[in-house]
Amino acid sequence: MRVVCLAGGVGGAKLADGLAQIVAPGELSVVVNTGDDFERHSLAIWPDHDTVLYTLAGLADPVQGWGIAGETWNVMDTLSSLGEETWFRLGDRDLATHLYRTDRLRRGARPTEVAFELGVALAVPTAVLPMTDAPVRTKVETDDGWLDFQDYFVRLRQSPDVRGVAYEGVDAAAATPEVEAAIAAAEAIVVAPSNPVVSIGPILAVPGVLDAIQAARARGVPAVGVSGIVGGKALRGPADRMLASLGEESSAVGVARRYAAAGLLDGIAIDVQDERLAGEVARLGLEVLTTDTVMTDRGSRATLAAGLLDFASSLPARRRVAT
Amino acid sequence: MRVVCLAGGVGGAKLADGLAQIVAPGELSVVVNTGDDFERHSLAIWPDHDTVLYTLAGLADPVQGWGIAGETWNVMDTLSSLGEETWFRLGDRDLATHLYRTDRLRRGARPTEVAFELGVALAVPTAVLPMTDAPVRTKVETDDGWLDFQDYFVRLRQSPDVRGVAYEGVDAAAATPEVEAAIAAAEAIVVAPSNPVVSIGPILAVPGVLDAIQAARARGVPAVGVSGIVGGKALRGPADRMLASLGEESSAVGVARRYAAAGLLDGIAIDVQDERLAGEVARLGLEVLTTDTVMTDRGSRATLAAGLLDFASSLPARRRVAT
Repeated sequence: MRVVCLAGGVGGAKLADGLAQIVAPGELSVVVNTGDDFERHSLAIWPDHDTVLYTLAGLADPVQGWGIAGETWNVMDTLSSLGEETWFRLGDRDLATHLYRTDRLRRGARPTEVAFELGVALAVPTAVLPMTDAPVRTKVETDDGWLDFQDYFVRLRQSPDVRGVAYEGVDAAAATPEVEAAIAAAEAIVVAPSNPVVSIGPILAVPGVLDAIQAARARGVPAVGVSGIVGGKALRGPADRMLASLGEESSAVGVARRYAAAGLLDGIAIDVQDERLAGEVARLGLEVLTTDTVMTDRGSRATLAAGLLDFASSLPARRRVAT
Repeated sequence: MRVVCLAGGVGGAKLADGLAQIVAPGELSVVVNTGDDFERHSLAIWPDHDTVLYTLAGLADPVQGWGIAGETWNVMDTLSSLGEETWFRLGDRDLATHLYRTDRLRRGARPTEVAFELGVALAVPTAVLPMTDAPVRTKVETDDGWLDFQDYFVRLRQSPDVRGVAYEGVDAAAATPEVEAAIAAAEAIVVAPSNPVVSIGPILAVPGVLDAIQAARARGVPAVGVSGIVGGKALRGPADRMLASLGEESSAVGVARRYAAAGLLDGIAIDVQDERLAGEVARLGLEVLTTDTVMTDRGSRATLAAGLLDFASSLPARRRVAT
C-alpha cells in the first residue's frame, strides 16, 4: 500500500516510524516541513527532516526525540569557548549531516537530492521528501514583533504568545516533482500528529501540495489525520498555546477544524481521552476514529499507524468519491 | 623589542613560540602564509594560521605538530560514514575554529579581523596576521599537471615531483594595513625555518610585503632567517625534494640563495651540521650564524629565538644602513 505521510518533527517522526514498520519498503514517502529550516554557523540545518531521518534510521535519541543517540558535544563546547552563542545545540555526529548537506547545496544540489543521498547513506528505505526545494521560513508574530522560528522555538523556548504566523517565501515555492509524484501514486494519505500551525501548515501552504491531495481525494484516495492535542494539551511543543493565542480552540476540535476548513481530510483520529469531542468533530464533516494516539514506544507507533491505515481503508467509498 | 616573524606551518609555529617566550607580550607579530588556505566541506580552512595560533595558545598536538592535543574525531568519522572523502582530517575541536571563521567571513569580516578575534578568544597576546585579506591559492605543477596545494600536500602526501609553483590570485592581493604597520614598526624581522617555496614564497609574493621589509632594512632594521634544511634534508615536509625538482640546491645554500636573490635578508642561521656550508652562504652576501637550529622542545625554541635576535642585533650597523 503506497502511503504518503505529512510530518513535522518528533510527532511526525514517530508516526513515520510506525508506518515504516508496517508498509512495504519503498512504499512510504514522508513529506517533511521545511519551514523550520535555517542557517546556523553558516550550516544548513533542517530540524524536521533530520528528526524524521534519524528516527527512521534508528539513530534518534530516544529521550529528547531529536538528535542522535549517544551524541557528543565537543564542537559545540569549543564553539562556546570561542564566544559563539550555542543555544541551538548541534552534536558532533549530527554536525556531519549539516556539513555534508551544506557542501552539497553550495555545489548546486537540490534539497530533495541531498535528502535522497542522506537517506541512502543511512540505509533508510523510506523517501523523506522536503515539501519544496525553495526556501520557506516560518516566522511568528509576538507582542514584541516578528521572530524567526528557531528564535521563538529554541532560543526563547516558545515562551512568547504567538499572534500570527507567516511562511516567508512560500508564495514563490512549489511542490517538488517528487512530492507531486508521491501524492499522485498514493493509496492513502496520513497527516501526522504534528503542530497544525507551524509543522503541517507550511506544507499545505506550498503551492501544489493541497491541490495534489484534493485531486487524490477526488479519485477516492482516503486522507486521514491524527490530533496531536490530547486532553487539551499538546503531547509535545506549543501547539495548544499557539492555537489558543491565535484565538482558536486548543483541542482536537481546533485541530480538526483547521484541517476540515482546508479541505485536507476525510477522517481524523482523536485520543480515547477526547471521546466526548467525537460528535463535535463529526459535525465538521470528518469521519472520526477514537483510539489510543499516544505513541510511547516503537510498538505503539506501529499500532497507531496500522489503525490509521485500517481507518483510511474503511472510509466509505461513496464519501471518498463524492469529496 | 618589536619583532615580525614570517612563518608557514609547523616550523614557523615553533619559532613563533620561541619568540613569544622571550619578546614582551604585544611586541611580536607573526605574518602567516595563506597560500595553503582552502575550502573543505564548505568550511574555510587556514592550515598555517591555525598551526601557529594553536601552538601559541599551547593547544597544539605535540606529536603531529598540527591540530589540537587530545582531539576527538567524531564529526570526521561520521562524515566518512556518509560517504565523504575525509583525507583532510579535521578534529572536533578544530572544527569549531573553522565553523566560527566561516560564519564570520560569510558575514563580511576581513580575514585579519577573524584572526584577531580567534587570538583574543584563545588568549594569545601575539598578533597572528594573515599575509593578505585577498584569496591566494598556491598551486604546484607536477608531471600530471597543476594541483591544488592540499591535493599535493595532504591527499597525495607530497609524492609527485614539483616542477613549478604558482600563487594564484597573488597579483590582485595586497599586504594588509596590519602587516604593513607591523613591519614598519619592527625592530627586527625574522624569517622562520619554513618551506622557502610554498610557505615563505607566497608571503614575499604579496605586493607590498617585500617592499616593506626592504624599506625597513634600508632604515637599519635587521632581517634574519633560518634554514629549514639541515644536512640536506628538510626537518619536516617536502622542501628538500621540492628545491631539487625545481633545479635548485637542496641545502642551506639553496635556501640562502633564494632569500639573497629576493633581497630579503641580512643574515641567515644555518645548523651546526652544515658548518662546512658557511663560507658558501657568506659568498651570497649574507652574514652567517652557525647554531643548533633543530627545535626539539619549548626550551630549544626559545634558545634559537634568542640566538636569532642576538644575531640580528649584532649585525654591523654599517651593513644595515648600507643595504
